[in-house]
This record gives sequence, structure tokens and C-alpha cells, in this order.
Amino acid sequence: MSFLAAASPAHPAAVLLGVPYDATSTFRRGSALAPQAIRWASQSIETYSPVLRRDLEALPYVDRGDLDAGSLSPEAMADVVRASVAAVGRDALSVLIGGEHTLTLGAVQALHDLHPDLAVVQLDAHADLRDEYEGRRVSHATVMRRILEIIPPERVIALGIRAGTREELALAQRYRASSPRTALSSEVWTWLQDRPLYVTVDIDAVDPSDAPGTGNPEPEGISAGDLLSFVRRLGDLRVVGLDLVEVSPPYDPSGRTAIFAATIVREALLAVCAT
Amino acid sequence: MSFLAAASPAHPAAVLLGVPYDATSTFRRGSALAPQAIRWASQSIETYSPVLRRDLEALPYVDRGDLDAGSLSPEAMADVVRASVAAVGRDALSVLIGGEHTLTLGAVQALHDLHPDLAVVQLDAHADLRDEYEGRRVSHATVMRRILEIIPPERVIALGIRAGTREELALAQRYRASSPRTALSSEVWTWLQDRPLYVTVDIDAVDPSDAPGTGNPEPEGISAGDLLSFVRRLGDLRVVGLDLVEVSPPYDPSGRTAIFAATIVREALLAVCAT
Amino acid sequence: MSFLAAASPAHPAAVLLGVPYDATSTFRRGSALAPQAIRWASQSIETYSPVLRRDLEALPYVDRGDLDAGSLSPEAMADVVRASVAAVGRDALSVLIGGEHTLTLGAVQALHDLHPDLAVVQLDAHADLRDEYEGRRVSHATVMRRILEIIPPERVIALGIRAGTREELALAQRYRASSPRTALSSEVWTWLQDRPLYVTVDIDAVDPSDAPGTGNPEPEGISAGDLLSFVRRLGDLRVVGLDLVEVSPPYDPSGRTAIFAATIVREALLAVCAT
Amino acid sequence: MSFLAAASPAHPAAVLLGVPYDATSTFRRGSALAPQAIRWASQSIETYSPVLRRDLEALPYVDRGDLDAGSLSPEAMADVVRASVAAVGRDALSVLIGGEHTLTLGAVQALHDLHPDLAVVQLDAHADLRDEYEGRRVSHATVMRRILEIIPPERVIALGIRAGTREELALAQRYRASSPRTALSSEVWTWLQDRPLYVTVDIDAVDPSDAPGTGNPEPEGISAGDLLSFVRRLGDLRVVGLDLVEVSPPYDPSGRTAIFAATIVREALLAVCAT
Amino acid sequence: MSFLAAASPAHPAAVLLGVPYDATSTFRRGSALAPQAIRWASQSIETYSPVLRRDLEALPYVDRGDLDAGSLSPEAMADVVRASVAAVGRDALSVLIGGEHTLTLGAVQALHDLHPDLAVVQLDAHADLRDEYEGRRVSHATVMRRILEIIPPERVIALGIRAGTREELALAQRYRASSPRTALSSEVWTWLQDRPLYVTVDIDAVDPSDAPGTGNPEPEGISAGDLLSFVRRLGDLRVVGLDLVEVSPPYDPSGRTAIFAATIVREALLAVCAT
Amino acid sequence: MSFLAAASPAHPAAVLLGVPYDATSTFRRGSALAPQAIRWASQSIETYSPVLRRDLEALPYVDRGDLDAGSLSPEAMADVVRASVAAVGRDALSVLIGGEHTLTLGAVQALHDLHPDLAVVQLDAHADLRDEYEGRRVSHATVMRRILEIIPPERVIALGIRAGTREELALAQRYRASSPRTALSSEVWTWLQDRPLYVTVDIDAVDPSDAPGTGNPEPEGISAGDLLSFVRRLGDLRVVGLDLVEVSPPYDPSGRTAIFAATIVREALLAVCAT
Repeated sequence: MSFLAAASPAHPAAVLLGVPYDATSTFRRGSALAPQAIRWASQSIETYSPVLRRDLEALPYVDRGDLDAGSLSPEAMADVVRASVAAVGRDALSVLIGGEHTLTLGAVQALHDLHPDLAVVQLDAHADLRDEYEGRRVSHATVMRRILEIIPPERVIALGIRAGTREELALAQRYRASSPRTALSSEVWTWLQDRPLYVTVDIDAVDPSDAPGTGNPEPEGISAGDLLSFVRRLGDLRVVGLDLVEVSPPYDPSGRTAIFAATIVREALLAVCAT
Repeated sequence: MSFLAAASPAHPAAVLLGVPYDATSTFRRGSALAPQAIRWASQSIETYSPVLRRDLEALPYVDRGDLDAGSLSPEAMADVVRASVAAVGRDALSVLIGGEHTLTLGAVQALHDLHPDLAVVQLDAHADLRDEYEGRRVSHATVMRRILEIIPPERVIALGIRAGTREELALAQRYRASSPRTALSSEVWTWLQDRPLYVTVDIDAVDPSDAPGTGNPEPEGISAGDLLSFVRRLGDLRVVGLDLVEVSPPYDPSGRTAIFAATIVREALLAVCAT
Repeated sequence: MSFLAAASPAHPAAVLLGVPYDATSTFRRGSALAPQAIRWASQSIETYSPVLRRDLEALPYVDRGDLDAGSLSPEAMADVVRASVAAVGRDALSVLIGGEHTLTLGAVQALHDLHPDLAVVQLDAHADLRDEYEGRRVSHATVMRRILEIIPPERVIALGIRAGTREELALAQRYRASSPRTALSSEVWTWLQDRPLYVTVDIDAVDPSDAPGTGNPEPEGISAGDLLSFVRRLGDLRVVGLDLVEVSPPYDPSGRTAIFAATIVREALLAVCAT
Repeated sequence: MSFLAAASPAHPAAVLLGVPYDATSTFRRGSALAPQAIRWASQSIETYSPVLRRDLEALPYVDRGDLDAGSLSPEAMADVVRASVAAVGRDALSVLIGGEHTLTLGAVQALHDLHPDLAVVQLDAHADLRDEYEGRRVSHATVMRRILEIIPPERVIALGIRAGTREELALAQRYRASSPRTALSSEVWTWLQDRPLYVTVDIDAVDPSDAPGTGNPEPEGISAGDLLSFVRRLGDLRVVGLDLVEVSPPYDPSGRTAIFAATIVREALLAVCAT
Repeated sequence: MSFLAAASPAHPAAVLLGVPYDATSTFRRGSALAPQAIRWASQSIETYSPVLRRDLEALPYVDRGDLDAGSLSPEAMADVVRASVAAVGRDALSVLIGGEHTLTLGAVQALHDLHPDLAVVQLDAHADLRDEYEGRRVSHATVMRRILEIIPPERVIALGIRAGTREELALAQRYRASSPRTALSSEVWTWLQDRPLYVTVDIDAVDPSDAPGTGNPEPEGISAGDLLSFVRRLGDLRVVGLDLVEVSPPYDPSGRTAIFAATIVREALLAVCAT
Repeated sequence: MSFLAAASPAHPAAVLLGVPYDATSTFRRGSALAPQAIRWASQSIETYSPVLRRDLEALPYVDRGDLDAGSLSPEAMADVVRASVAAVGRDALSVLIGGEHTLTLGAVQALHDLHPDLAVVQLDAHADLRDEYEGRRVSHATVMRRILEIIPPERVIALGIRAGTREELALAQRYRASSPRTALSSEVWTWLQDRPLYVTVDIDAVDPSDAPGTGNPEPEGISAGDLLSFVRRLGDLRVVGLDLVEVSPPYDPSGRTAIFAATIVREALLAVCAT
């Protein structure tokens, strides 16, 4: 398969947008190369999901290519994302393929405008709750802090978090739910079903054994299988936007992180959009 | 240890043959480099298996080197494999080290000639049941379809399958047994014990975290430990042939896929041939 | 710098288009990853050329992102390229960043429509003059043969060619000029100055020591310095289109092939468009 | 964080020493590069441990850099280690970062001088109990055999061992405890609490999926999570010395083995020294 | 050989210091790993130079290991370098192995204190003359600008420069000499012989074909042979300090950049110190 | 093309033999993987040589696969090589593809038996003239010393040598000719034409920019073009045996060293055997 292969339906159920941006990544850059690597990797997997028993070929989605944000400031890049997601609007699922985590800010801004009761589910190894990082207020390390200025903590659920400063982790305690794994209480799950959701998947939520190609791999992560199970259950919720960020191809010569990322996107599309 | 180290016994219990062939691999080639990489990797592991409590040094086996098939058509390559396995005959276990999965066709043809009631156990991520692929009827993507023209589906067991088209997976439903894991019911296990078996191990049956060095890694695979446990139980069955295919060294700079492959071969030899 | 950084001028002097396509590459794929890798690499070089004493920041060009051709047949991909180059028209220089060499066919078709007396300069290690390759008439190995059906050999100049079948190299003898290096007689150079030119740079024209990241590196190539010197002289000619193909990032962990490619594009833009 | 960032406290609770030595590694060298790679990797992780709820910034430790042993004989290198650990003395925890496993001999010698009732806990894939290896009596393959000449087997506990000759594994049977996993009976645990301990962690104890960057990866290892859990429990014991050996950065382009190693060191320091 | 192998002479002619620091490298980090990689690589070359006909074994030099500067600010790191070079003093040649180029500032400060008429020879691809870079006044991109505040431009010679902004390159015009190659007029050479010199070698001065392992490779560089020839002629000058910076091992899996760096250090030591 | 593709002629003009052996390589192993990598790489080059204007398809040669020597002692491996070359005899050219340089000893022994006046041409970076190395008298570092016990120095010519101890290089002075480049005086060339020659090509004779995939790359080597020119002139001499050793694929992810090696073999076969 190939994400690019889809014909251009008049009324797509989902719109894919690449965001090849990694300018604030300080330790190891490379996530700007992910959108193209994930599209390429999508050629090595089937369009059919044996678990969901659905086929991407039957889904009216479109890949609109990459946003032109490569050398903007992080604030300007987030604005471009915001405008692009706003342009997709309410009729289709916005699926963003990063690039670094900072892009999530623009997407949440746009979808919060459309859905004022938006809730956010973050899958991530790191809290990303610093108030400032290396002199920047908008960066991959502060993105959730900025989002908390839009979405109150009781509408945020964080899964997989296992790294942060003492202050960040204390702040994350105020979330509706927070867990190092993907399990959620039925109460939280019920709460989630009642509202529009944005799901942001930082690939480093996943264990480095399953997703080595990322800038800051952190041991003791979620298994690939658990992440896919979670993604496949998204059909039970009302997901209005989704991103997959921080895949960094140069750190994985096997290419399996990009292939896994393509699989996540396929399963997410089939779970959320197919019927 | 080194597979090549074995002296040449007059009556070997097993014969190793390399098949450095990857001409039909379309997405990412490299499995032609596996036989030499696996032999080299075998130098980094011991000859003794602590689990089986047996030692390769006590086993009369021989490594006959590589078949001369590198630039043949897939059909001609399968014929060379067929002839070579036929030459090994009934007195020794044929162990083929690929190379791409297509070689299995030749081995099954030869062993079916010797054992008309041959059953086949396939460990694989992909169904390999396409009728044609990129204009070819004999390729890594069609090999099990061609084998079904020799061995009826009720004599095939497939483990680890988690990728294919809707049509392929429907066809795999007709197998005696099919499972994404290695567990088999006692009924199926009993059935297996009654007949000559060919076991084909596509390394991508194993999870990419344990075997990243392969052309088409697919998430959610069998664990390395489960595969080794399965292989160690082969001594309870009547295995007459075995292959290990699709290791692709260029995609694993750590070399651990080749080392794992060497371990699979050691455990298989010790399980099937040692007493 | 970054190619994506350029503002969008009303009347661009040049238009960059990525073509992330490598479907017919048989030995080693990966050139589909080049457009994004070259853009990313462009961030590590300056916008200013000390040799040309010109700055990209003063040049009104635009990067229009990638063509949506990833999983088309080679014929259909060439058609997409043709339409895109036709849309750029006569007022701006079309600069295509591959992807595999096949895309050149579409570009030459479009520019030949606009400039019936178009001449072609090919920098390449391989003649690419097969009539058919692996069952295909349109592929990276046949692209110049197809182009000869549009542009007569006396309007083709080939530099760097050092590999081919006996038949291909005999056919290349009919070109106006052909040389393993970049030197051209003053007669040929004068001839070139009189007509619209399309320049196609297959990165494997360059020696593998300078450009290791390509699918089929061939020893004894043009030096990076000679290629850049040639490119810098393009300002003396009437270049109407240009491509840079066959960079394959997975084969160069140092990333220097992509950085070199970004430098070629910068120098070409500054030589051809700046004044 | 960075191990090097710690100020130099007057009375450090722990002293880190690098031992960039890999001269007896025969199959694949590279562990000499580990101390610098682990320090560098430590910049990508936080100083705070969410599991232990302690922060390295509050711990008075010091990194004394690398021992000058790079081209000594293994015997002389062990002597340098012995002298350095003796110089640290009883007031601080010695933490050695290898380098190859041979360095453990020097550390055990020094600490046995200080603590005659020293016990040793070895986490390792290989028994390292050969009497001689490639003509050497002091090497990575014999180090535990040499240590048995100082510490009797009833004061040794080995975890993770899954490779060795029949003779080595028979000898390991004489240990107080030996297990392929990290679980220990409460009886053994109680016994451990009563005496000074040296803990040596060969990274290949861990499964190759979690720690691919090592010279001799061996399937079926301890999970990263189990190792970290074990390390975090070291605070309940009386650890007087610790090493982490056999990380080999060249075999892990993702860098995650070094990052994991930095995490092990952080958790060990926080578990053993913080209060 | 191994740099670490040298005995500790009472009166060393040269002192080696590693500076594993790369905190301001924005595009691609990794030079912090160079000191250990270069020491390790030194094991693969001979101590004898056939060109200089001298042997390192006869030279009383010492490797003092790495400075403890890994996570300091660039200003503080430069201060540590300054103090360390000052401590070496006038009696021995200071040889610094980076790490990023910023360290040169500290070395020049220290040696300028000792030798007020110090001249500087810079071998580099980049001018490094920005006044500020990414908000920093002390960084790898500004280091020569800061040095110009100590050493006037008529006492600076720059070789290999081929990248910079228009402003930087205009500023470099004020140097006594500046050349993209290593050739110097006899007038300049004579001038050089009259004064104490500091030589800073940024490995990216060298062509990427010879030194791919660096953060910002730039085409059209000095050849490895020309650099070595220049270094071998340093014995004719009065060199009082020397550094080799910006080797970045992760970008060169072949390891040859580190081996070449070790060779440069050997030849420099033998040229400058041996008699 | 593929070396394995050749049919099996009744009277081959040349016989290829792989020797996948690297047991004495101490710094970095991997050359045991070269024979398979070079065969695989041969698929990416043409059978036709535009320089020699000859085609391998017209040459009756055969690839006999790999010798079974992988885990022998170096002495025993050399004996296997000796027997194999003796079996080829005088009627065909023996072409050995290593593996480490030690194999040359066996080949020279066999051909000296057949041609008592055999001369040897060595292309190599290293003198390989140690009398003993790491306790071995037969190893890659001593192979030419052992050969001097068979062939007197006045019948040896060494090209490319640029590394060795003072003692080794003094000994090499006794050769008939020795040069860091490939140029030979007409007197020496005439002398060479009069006698049977064995040519051994250690790939590290070539500059690391052209051949990075080797265990001990040494700067300032012969260019790829000069080596190929030398090889193409071998048709003017009476070559009776040839080897190509020390290619080490793991150190060259671009694969170009193996492709270059395949090109050397093609040109050598066409120069020596074709007419």
C-alpha cells in the first residue's frame, strides 16, 4: 500500500498532513524526515487490517502532502498547522504526521476552536510540561504546558509518561487520568466517550525495543501491541484529530519504526473512519 | 562455534545448505547475504545448549556451503533447491538457510516426492498466498500458494500470520490450524506427531524487536523465546526438512538477527537430530 | 538555509518540485526519501555561494513540495511530472528533485512541448539506454531510450557515462557529445549556448567517494568539484529545466550526499536564475 | 542531565570511574567507547527518577573521568582498576563504567581487601567461567573463574546466565544461587542483606531487544524493566561496589543501549546512595 | 599504538587533553564522542611515521584524559580549557582533542596570555565569524569572531574556508592570508616562522570524502593528503598549541574519520615535538 | 551481472574461490562476510567493461563458491587454500576472494610449487612483515614475512605501502620495487613480463575515500582509478593467480566497497583471461 495511492475523494473521511519540522529538537534531530519515511514504509504493509477486518482501499481519505513549515519559528509552524487543520474543518478527521511534538499545539488550537469541549489524550514518554526550555516557550519540551493554557487538566489524559522533572510530574497529577500503561478505568473510558477527542501519539511512548527510531528513547515504555490495541479501540470514541510525532528515521537503520508508524496510521484510520 | 567447523561425518544426521538468493524481493533486498552472515554469527555463540543440555560438537552434521543459484530465475532456483534436497535424501535432515522464502517451494517438492504424506508448518508474518505478484507466479509472495498445489490445506499449519490481503487470509482459513502465536491444541499436536513434517521459518514471524534484520518487518510478532520453545519441541515430531529464510543482514547493524538465526539453527539441530 | 524557507514570490524565477518515487529501482530502493532529506540537509548549508557571490535569499524561487505520485505506475508518474512542469510553464525554471531517474521523461516531454528545439544534457554513470528492463519499457534503466524517441541523439550530450551494455554504449556514440568527464569542446559549448537546455543530473555521475548515497554507485566518476564547476557555468547557457535524481539517503549515514545535493541545487539556482 | 555535571562534593557518596578498555574482546570490539557514549547519553535523560522519587541533583557524587588503561595488558588494566577502587575506599560507592568485563576482577580484588566477606552478584548472559581463553587467563571470558579464586562460589549469585560450555555451567551450579531471571528466593535475599555486596552488570544479561549494543548479544535475556526493578531494590542491600560493562556503542546506531545504561547508573546511584 | 599507552614522562614535550563537549552544535551533535573514538582509533595505526621517519614511542608526551566540562555553558567550558592550557604552560605543547570548535577560544586565551604575539592558523570549512548564533555569543559558529577580539586579523591565517554568510566572508578578507587550499606564499610562510602559533584544525576543512564523520560536511574541501602535508611542515614553525575539533563519530560508521584524526595527531606530535 | 551466473564451462579460463575467513583480525573483524557481499554486489554492475571493451559473458570462468575454512586455525586455513589452488592447477587462473590477507600464504605456496620462479606483486597499505603478531606466526600481519621464506625479496614488488613499524619498512627496502603509488619503472615492468606472477590486492591499498569498508583503513592511499588502471594492464603480464582481500562489509553501509571489489574482479578477469 501507500498512503499516497489513495484517489482524491470528493468528501474525504480523513485528511493526512505531513509536518516535516524538527527545529527545536536539541539532543538529536531527524523527525523532519519522518513524513516521507512513513509514506515510503507504507508501501511495505498491506492495506487490509486482519484485526479490524477493514481495508484502507475502501476508505475515502486523502494525503495532502507536507505543510510548508520547515524553517519557520516554532510559533509560526504551529500557526501553519492551526490554519491547515482549521481548513480541514469538522467534516474530516485531521491526521498529522510529524515532525516534532510542537506541532500538536497548532492542531489543538484549531480543533478547540471547532470543539470548545475538546479533550486531549497524550501518549508519550515525557511529560512535555516545562514552562520554558532552552530559552523557548514553544518547543517539544513545553508543548503540553502551552496546551494546558487552552485545555484544562481535567480534560487531559496522559498515558505512558515515565520521564520528567519533579515539577512536571507533579503538574501531571492534576490530569483526569495518568498512567504509565494504556489501561484506563471504565469510568474514564465512559467519560472519554462523551466528548470530542484529540489524540497525540509521541512514538517514544512506545518501548525503544519496538520503536528505536526516535530522538529521546526512554526505557520501560508501552508495548507496540498495547499501543495498537488502544488505537484500534478509538472507533468507540469520538476522535476529531490525531497526530503521530517524533519518529526519527536516522536512528533506526532497520526502518521498522517507520513501518510501525505506518501501521499505527492505518489502524487509526480504519478504526476511526471506517464503518 | 561455527557451523563450518564440523568435521565431515560419513553419515551425517543433518545437512546444511545455504541459498543466497533474493532476486524477487521487491521492497528491500539483502537476504542473499544471510547464509554467510549466519555462519559468521555462529562463531559468537556456544555449541552447547543449556536448555536442551546437548552439544553440537557431538552431532554428526555437515555444512555443504551455498547452492549456486544466485542469478537464476526463481523457478530455476527452486529446481536447484529441489535437486539438492533430493540428493540429501531420507537419511539426513535437510536444513536450508535462505535467502528469500521462494526456496521453500523446491524443498517441499523434493520432500513431498520422498514423503507423499508430508505436512508443512509455516512460521511467518505474511500469508504468502498471492496467486501472482508483480507479474511472477513463483516469488516470496506466492510461495505458499504454489505449495498448496502440492500439499492440501488440511496438511498445512500456519503460525504467526498477521498480514495479507483479505483474499489471502480467507484462503488461510482452510488450513488445519492457523494462529498468530505458537500455541497449538493438543489435538493438532497429536496429528502432527503422526506424519513427516517440513518446517519453514520466515524470520519475520518473529517480532521486529527480536529480529529487526528482515525485509518486511511486521509488528505484533511471535517472541524470540516462543519461537525457540517451539523449535526445541520439534524433537517430539518427525521433522524431515527445515528452513530459515528472510534474514536480511543490512537492516540490522547490531547483527543480533543473524546471531538469533544461528541460535535457531543450533536448537533445531539439537532438538531434531540429537538423542 | 532551507529550501522551504523561501517566501512565495508572485513571479518566481524557479520552481522546485519533489518527486518521491522509486518504484522501478530493482537493486536498492530509497530515492523516494531524497526530496525530504535534501530539504532537511539544506538547513546545514548557507544561502550564500562564495564562488558565485550570490545569495539565495535574493532569489525569488519557490518550493512547491512533493508531487503526489508515490505509488503510481512509472508511466503515470511521468505523466504527473509532465503536467506539473507544463504548469510551471516558460516563465520559471523547473527544478525537479527525485526520486528515480524515470521522472526525467515527463519533464523532457513537457519542456519539449514548450521548446521544440530542446537539447538534453545528461550527467550519469549509466547510459540508461536499454529498450526494456525487467519487463518495463519505462524505468530508470530505459529513460534515455524513451527520451531518444523525442529528442534526436544529435541534441543529446552525455557526461560521466561509464557503465552499460555493449549495445547501450554503441547507441550513445550517436550523441552529439559524450565524455566520461565534464569537459566539453568549445564547439560543443557554443552549440549548447544557442538552444534551450534540459539538464538531468543523476547523482551517480559523481564518484562514489563524493556521493555514496545512491542505489548503484559506480567507480571512476566525476569529482564533486567538477560537477559543481559545470553547474556554476550553466548561467552561460539557456537552461529551461533541471533535475537531480537517484540520491538514496539510506545508503549514506553521514548524510553528506544529501548535503552535496542541496549544494548542487543552490549553485544551479544561483547560476541559472540570479543576475 | 549529565554525569559530568555534578559539582565536586567534599565527601561524595559515590565515585564514577570510566574504564575504556576492550583489548581482549575477540568477536566484536567497541566497549572502550562506552564510557564516553554513556556520559553523552546521560544528557538525554532527566536527573529525576519518577519511580524512586529521588533526584540526582541532590546526590553528592562525582565522575572522576576515565582510568588510563587503554593499551595495558588485561592484568595491568585490572591492577589499575584495583588501585583506583582502593583509593575510593570505604566511604563512597565505587561505580565502574566499562569497557569489557575483565575490569570486574580489579574491582573485586580491591573491595575484597576492604570487605573480606564480600559477596558478588553477577548479571550476565555468559558464565565467563573458562579457565583460559585464546591463550589468556585474564579476559572477559575467564573473569568469573579468576574471581572464584578470591570469592568462594557460595558467596556468588548469578542472574541471567544462559550461555556457556557444559563445563562452565556445571561450575556455576556451585553458586549460592543462579537463575536465568532476576527473581531470588526470600532466603537468598535475606542472606544478601547481611553482607557487603559487589554487583556486576554485564549489559548482555539484558535481552538484545532492549540492549542491542553489545559484542555478544544472546537471545532470551532479562527484560530492561526487570533489570531496572532489580537495581532499584539495591537500596535494601549493602552494595559497596558496582559496575556496568560490555556496552558496545558501534552496534547500536539508535543509541538506546547507552541511554539505557545511563538510566541504570542513575537508578543505581539513587537506590544505593540517596536517602 | 594508543595515545593512552605512553608512559608518564617527567617533562613531557606535549600534553593531550580531550574536551568531550558539543552542547552548542545545532544541526547534528556527536563531537563529544570524538576524544574516546580517536583514542580508540589510535590502536589501529602504527606509532611510526614512514614520512617523518620518527616514532611516537620515542616521544615524551602524555595523554591527560578528558576535561570535565560536558554540561557546562560554552563560556564556562572555554574557561576550563583556558585554565587547563595555562596549567600546561610554556614547556609543553598543548594538544586539544574536541569536541566542538568553541573550545579553541579558551586555548587561544590561555596561550595569548603566555605569548602576547600569538598568531592563529585556522583550517576550517566555515568562517565561524558570526557575531551571535541562535542567541549565543560563544558557540561553534562565533568562535573566530570572539578570537578576533583577542588576536587582530593580521595575525590570523585561514585555510580551507568555503562557507559563510556574505558578511563573514567579507570580514575574513581582513586576515593576513586566506585560501581555500593549504598553499601559502613564501612571504606568509616566512612571516609565520617568526612567531608563536596556535593551529586549530576543524576536521570539516577536509573534504567529506576523506572525513565524512563531522556535523556539517561541506563539499570541495582540502584533501587528506594536503592536510597531512601541511601538518608535517609544522616542525618548521614555532607551534605552541594545537587542536583538532568537530570529528563526529556517529556520522561515520566506517570509523575512518577517527582513524584519520589519530593520524593527524600522530603526525603533528612527531613534526612539532620530535627532533 | 552476477559472478554466480556463469555457466560451468568444461575448460574454465578462471576459477573463483571465496575464503570467508577473518579469525586473526584483531582490531575489527568482518572480512569473512566479503565473498557473499561481493557476489551480491556483482549484481549491480554490468558484465561489459567499456574500458577493456570485453564482456564477462564471453569468458569461460566459474565461481566454485566458498572454501570450508571458517573456523580453522590460520595455518590450516592456508593449507585448505593451498590444496584448492593446487587443484585448479596451471590451466586456469585462480582468483581468491577473501577474507583476511592470511589466505595469500596458501595461494603462493601452491603456485610456487607449480611455478618455481613465481614473482609476487602486493598492493597493500601495510607491509604485513611482522615476524609474529599477538602470539601468532601466521596472521594477516605476518603473511608477507612468511611469503618471504618462499619467495626471495628480489622477486617481490610492493605498491601502496604506507604503514608499518620501522623494522618492517626497512625490510621492505629489500624488495625489487616498492612504491606508495602504482607507477613502476619500465625496467621493473619489463622484468615483470618475463615471469609468472601472483597479484595480491589488499583493498586497504586503496584510499579510504574509495574503499571505506575495511578493517584498518589508512589515509593517503592509491586512488580507485589508479588501481583499476593497474589491474587493466595485467593482461600484458603473465598472471597465474590473484586475490582480493580485506574487504569488510560491516564498515561500509553504502556497499560501495563491495561494488568496487566486484569491479576489480571483473576487470581482472577480462584483462588477464579475455582475448
